[in-house]
Amino acid sequence: MNYNFSKGMSSLKPSVIREILKNSGDTIPLSAGNPAPDAFPVDDMREIAAKILAENPVLALQYGVTEGYKPLIEELTALAKNRYGAGGENDALIVVSGAQQTMSLMSQVFINYGDAVITEEPAFIGALNCFRGFGAKLVGVPIEKDGMDIDILEEKLRTTENAKFIYTIPNFQNPAGITTSLEKRKKIYELAKKYSVVILEDNPYGDLRVSGEPVPAIKSFDTDGLVVYNGSFSKIIAPGMRVGFTVAPKEIISKMTVAKQTQDVHTTMLTQLMVYNWLKAGKLEGHVEKIRSIYSRKLNLMCDNMDELLLPYLDYHRPEGGLFVWAKLKEGIDMLEFVKRASANGVSAVPGNAFLTDMSQKCDYIRLNFSTPGDEGIVEGIRLLAKTAREMKG
Amino acid sequence: MNYNFSKGMSSLKPSVIREILKNSGDTIPLSAGNPAPDAFPVDDMREIAAKILAENPVLALQYGVTEGYKPLIEELTALAKNRYGAGGENDALIVVSGAQQTMSLMSQVFINYGDAVITEEPAFIGALNCFRGFGAKLVGVPIEKDGMDIDILEEKLRTTENAKFIYTIPNFQNPAGITTSLEKRKKIYELAKKYSVVILEDNPYGDLRVSGEPVPAIKSFDTDGLVVYNGSFSKIIAPGMRVGFTVAPKEIISKMTVAKQTQDVHTTMLTQLMVYNWLKAGKLEGHVEKIRSIYSRKLNLMCDNMDELLLPYLDYHRPEGGLFVWAKLKEGIDMLEFVKRASANGVSAVPGNAFLTDMSQKCDYIRLNFSTPGDEGIVEGIRLLAKTAREMKG
Repeated sequence: MNYNFSKGMSSLKPSVIREILKNSGDTIPLSAGNPAPDAFPVDDMREIAAKILAENPVLALQYGVTEGYKPLIEELTALAKNRYGAGGENDALIVVSGAQQTMSLMSQVFINYGDAVITEEPAFIGALNCFRGFGAKLVGVPIEKDGMDIDILEEKLRTTENAKFIYTIPNFQNPAGITTSLEKRKKIYELAKKYSVVILEDNPYGDLRVSGEPVPAIKSFDTDGLVVYNGSFSKIIAPGMRVGFTVAPKEIISKMTVAKQTQDVHTTMLTQLMVYNWLKAGKLEGHVEKIRSIYSRKLNLMCDNMDELLLPYLDYHRPEGGLFVWAKLKEGIDMLEFVKRASANGVSAVPGNAFLTDMSQKCDYIRLNFSTPGDEGIVEGIRLLAKTAREMKG
Repeated sequence: MNYNFSKGMSSLKPSVIREILKNSGDTIPLSAGNPAPDAFPVDDMREIAAKILAENPVLALQYGVTEGYKPLIEELTALAKNRYGAGGENDALIVVSGAQQTMSLMSQVFINYGDAVITEEPAFIGALNCFRGFGAKLVGVPIEKDGMDIDILEEKLRTTENAKFIYTIPNFQNPAGITTSLEKRKKIYELAKKYSVVILEDNPYGDLRVSGEPVPAIKSFDTDGLVVYNGSFSKIIAPGMRVGFTVAPKEIISKMTVAKQTQDVHTTMLTQLMVYNWLKAGKLEGHVEKIRSIYSRKLNLMCDNMDELLLPYLDYHRPEGGLFVWAKLKEGIDMLEFVKRASANGVSAVPGNAFLTDMSQKCDYIRLNFSTPGDEGIVEGIRLLAKTAREMKG
């Protein structure tokens, strides 16, 4: 039988990163993006799960409401406002099955086949693929050291028909590692307002700052109902739980709720209750301090080793947080060839074109991750990248 | 700001049932559809969760692969084949975040705005709303005592452009309670083949048979790669876990996997592991026996009370399983007025038009549920429905 798939999905291929990971076998996974397992609050979660299933098992096992477990919504509403500056009286909050679901709900709620999404370029592949699957045309705005090129953003907003939202990760962007400056955040907001376009502000890494000063969320300026703020626990608690949250104008949350009802009815109750009890027990602050120190060590270990061994072959900026380093290979080193040889030498990296709106474009960048490998893996991985570069430069 | 929502979602309203439930306050919930909490394997799940989080916490907390936890896929593949006759060598299996997600994945994978879905009428509102949200045109085929009217099904297949799939719940259909006969299952399969249309066979209630003989799944005839089989644990383990599975031709599973990657990356690891360990411990068979006896008692309690008190006012067929009784009010009792007065009298039922492809059509049916209320609730609920009917008939 020949299946007649939808237009959006017909063109969509599985994530390039996942395919690379499948083929990277026993290499050191600098291509990955998993949080460090020693950053999971394992003992807390074991105790909390036991308590929930002893005291209130039916609540954990029965259907819940689509918006999320009500006490968790209240806890998160306060957290979003006090910790992230996200949410005012015209906003509401929905618990999602991981922050990825927000990409999908936003797509379902806003995108007709052929509509446009304006996105930072490079950008998170899981978001780009989601928008592609709903038939969105991706319009990229190049990223500079301090965020999107504002002139190009305005040009794209002026010239793009049916642009539904602007997608941005303002803190420690994936893959570029950069943080959007306060000035640019304000300009992005003003442009969104001028052109009546929503902003999808995705903040999975915001708590993973290891140096520099925090910058206020774009959502914190939102007096016009323009910003959808996407929060994640995947990097500060654990991704396997699939619990995230979105703060947005009530009218948008209401549509997202209807869409979520049709996607998965509600987020897994047990993990919602685990997150609720953990937050309620006041565990967040101390835990974030702990994981910041883990990631600070790993980030600096990678960058120190890069500075020592890789500067003849690539340029990069040391990020102030997050999970990724984005590095540009110098002239004379073909990026795809480099990634291939590195893999043969025992270390994997992600080819930068995976993060472009048009993956067939030429790209000199690679993305490196320091959260997944152990410390020895980081050191050895950088050594193998240097070896690969030396081989190629002769 | 005026939000420019997608065409599919603009027209979609929150589930009528959920709205009724919100307003039904302290009434006896014959309108509900939750499984009975005493049917949950609470002690098993408490022990299994503790074991997982003691022995393998990182597996439960880290990212998993989109298709599902591999040992669970293997366990479910064997279960689907041996227990439900679902799956051959050209098929694959994906773990989903509850069977509802399959509606959404199938919609994303197959439906372009304006395509058609052919569905039993009445049908499960969660599926209909999902298809609507993707802009599908719903083409209803009336249900008879033994399944869809086959002549009308053929007529609709012949005359409907861009029909992407046929949606059916062949066992103890929601809301109609009927089971499609073997003869009709074969005819539906032959027609799907003749007109090159996929079948989405949804089987959330198949294990809840309390009388009569099991009928083979449509998927068990599938030599042509036509059938997507949707399995659920919501009614045989617990719905709050959000774990289901889909068996379908490999090419379809591959597209669904890409779509799921963009929806929620993967299903919650902890609940996947709980289901895996529970199945692996051989708990299913004994537990299904236990819940069948619970539902048999509740079904017969409701129907015996209906036979005693409601036959002057409505007609219905005693179902052989599932969770629902579908009853047609006799002439002279206006359905919407009846539901409203029943609610005022302290018992809620779902107006049948909620399950129609066009909810504005006239409908004389109500849906009653016996799984959610306790035994006293069932008895009292039927008494209050009879009181309401007496008041209206004078």
